[in-house]
Amino acid sequence: MGSRDRAGAAGMNGGAPAAVDKGVDFANYFCTYAYLYHQKEMLSDRVRMDAYYDAIFKNKHHFIGKTVLDVGTGSGILAIWSAQAGARKVYAVEATKMSEHARSLVKANNLQEVVEVIEGSIEDITLPEKVDVIISEWMGYFLLRESMFDSVICARDRWLKPTGVMYPSHARMWLAPIRSRLGEQKMNDYEASMEDWYCFLNDTGTHYGVDMSVLSKPFSEEQERYYLQTALWNNLHPHQVIGSAAIVKEIDCLTATVDDILEVRSNISSSINVCGTRLNGFGGWFDVHFRGRREDPAHAEIELTTAPSVDGGTHWGQQVFLLHPQISVDEGDNINVSFSMTRSKENHRLMEMDLDCEICQPLGKQLQAFRKKFYID
Amino acid sequence: MGSRDRAGAAGMNGGAPAAVDKGVDFANYFCTYAYLYHQKEMLSDRVRMDAYYDAIFKNKHHFIGKTVLDVGTGSGILAIWSAQAGARKVYAVEATKMSEHARSLVKANNLQEVVEVIEGSIEDITLPEKVDVIISEWMGYFLLRESMFDSVICARDRWLKPTGVMYPSHARMWLAPIRSRLGEQKMNDYEASMEDWYCFLNDTGTHYGVDMSVLSKPFSEEQERYYLQTALWNNLHPHQVIGSAAIVKEIDCLTATVDDILEVRSNISSSINVCGTRLNGFGGWFDVHFRGRREDPAHAEIELTTAPSVDGGTHWGQQVFLLHPQISVDEGDNINVSFSMTRSKENHRLMEMDLDCEICQPLGKQLQAFRKKFYID
Repeated sequence: MGSRDRAGAAGMNGGAPAAVDKGVDFANYFCTYAYLYHQKEMLSDRVRMDAYYDAIFKNKHHFIGKTVLDVGTGSGILAIWSAQAGARKVYAVEATKMSEHARSLVKANNLQEVVEVIEGSIEDITLPEKVDVIISEWMGYFLLRESMFDSVICARDRWLKPTGVMYPSHARMWLAPIRSRLGEQKMNDYEASMEDWYCFLNDTGTHYGVDMSVLSKPFSEEQERYYLQTALWNNLHPHQVIGSAAIVKEIDCLTATVDDILEVRSNISSSINVCGTRLNGFGGWFDVHFRGRREDPAHAEIELTTAPSVDGGTHWGQQVFLLHPQISVDEGDNINVSFSMTRSKENHRLMEMDLDCEICQPLGKQLQAFRKKFYID
Repeated sequence: MGSRDRAGAAGMNGGAPAAVDKGVDFANYFCTYAYLYHQKEMLSDRVRMDAYYDAIFKNKHHFIGKTVLDVGTGSGILAIWSAQAGARKVYAVEATKMSEHARSLVKANNLQEVVEVIEGSIEDITLPEKVDVIISEWMGYFLLRESMFDSVICARDRWLKPTGVMYPSHARMWLAPIRSRLGEQKMNDYEASMEDWYCFLNDTGTHYGVDMSVLSKPFSEEQERYYLQTALWNNLHPHQVIGSAAIVKEIDCLTATVDDILEVRSNISSSINVCGTRLNGFGGWFDVHFRGRREDPAHAEIELTTAPSVDGGTHWGQQVFLLHPQISVDEGDNINVSFSMTRSKENHRLMEMDLDCEICQPLGKQLQAFRKKFYID
């Protein structure tokens, strides 16, 4: 689940990296999902809805007469579809008060005999039985923001039968070099902010007798982080992608562990495929697939992709990581990236990313090398 | 402290009304104050800065050779001024990591011998002595949003000498009838949102086989609360005030208790002073005064007001409470309001307000009567 309006997951809890305080987690993260407006945003995403709808209804063999667990049911939509596709029993778990709306929606659609809505964290609740299918829409920006997949893994390890299938079954993170006017925009914003700071310094010294220049460095670092190092939500046009996209991470939802995703490390390469263009940064996105499992595959393999698209944009958009200044590149140039993404110490649902980049000409001559840190807030 | 950008205090902690969880309070409230950008917003408010500056430097007798406690020092500005005005010792308490910047600012201004910055909650820290002055900029929107005055009261009860003075010494909440185009705007926004909902309902039923009409009522309630019942930040022009402003609450900072402000109840009257105009709602604001104490008064009584002003606007703006639909009123009409404001159960730093209104003609004939609930989020 990604949403433009998902302000949740922001804020600093200042706590130890060990156990996550539930109240803090609620204040930082869960609370946004309790709003119907937010649920509607996600329910209005046709690409998202079509993918899950098709994944279920074109693979009824996975649902008819089976038991299903919907992790983070929200409004209850996936649980309802699972029941409509023929499930014998569906457990729909939701941590927020949205569960009450899910319950009334289930009843209004005459599915209360099949769908049981349970309010609580998937980590805490108990089910009367293991299930044949775990379905969940857990994906955040660039796949892993929000770290909701941890909860899906927990659910799988506790409640999925040995023969069970995961919906979706696979997930991938992608990165590609892009051009974007946002680069110049954000630099202008940053510079205007610093210009304003120096006027403010001057005024405060003149009118109020306090020398605040010692704060210039921390202020500029804070502003730099905000304007230049924080990943941006954007809906990229395919024309903005100037080189081959590379897979940064592949996840098998049946076998992945939390350890596998605590730190995402990858060495990737991308080849520029546009003549005389500029590199403003990178775009990151994801896709998921519904393939079932080897012993019990899907009949129709459905893909949900959030790659840059002319008319297939989703509410996830893509995440944009800007470089300053822009770099002139040419067709055939190669960008080698050492990619590393970890969770923020202050908030495990947010990410920090390190890119170690090298740009080489087709024959191997190195043009540039640099590293940059980004924040996915 | 009020700020447009003070997103903090939002969010639902879903906890019991009893003890406030510190981690949750931090995630919901304190965290915004850890940003230099936010401190700069407040430091750039000339009306605010001038008032505190004048209050201190025109009343040096309260500071020279005295001990001072600055509750919620932020960047340290009030502590620094207190020291510059001649204080012997200043304790500057700040709950967030902003305290580190305050400490370096104190040092950069050569005041480290006088100003001691202490990181922590005022409720938890210990001082080596009681103080002569407690200074604090604690005011939120409409005065009490953020409930920071609770902390000032706690500081006063623990640390102020029997002869000590409070800076500011007094505070008042004001309410006045207003006209505003926001009324129509917000109604349009609400109606557009509901129109969109019904299209969404139709699409979801048609394409996805799920009847979501049972959610129409809760959705419209959520949208109504958001668009029509939530207090808005606005910078009102004096011309928008169409009747006499009334004092809703008066606070003596030396003697007020938390009980006094847990529930603010008041019966007020306002007389319309514009011919043939419209009532779109009410504007709420506050003022504070620096008068010292009866036995040790200020030499120069300074006022900091956030009333609607042509050029004296502050970052607090005013809080606007809209009525729908607008009501035609005339010069001489009287509005009697039974006002009640309490803290939100989910978050003690946010408020709920009930207005029981009656509009009467000059000779007493009642034109209208209604009640409305508002949320100060």
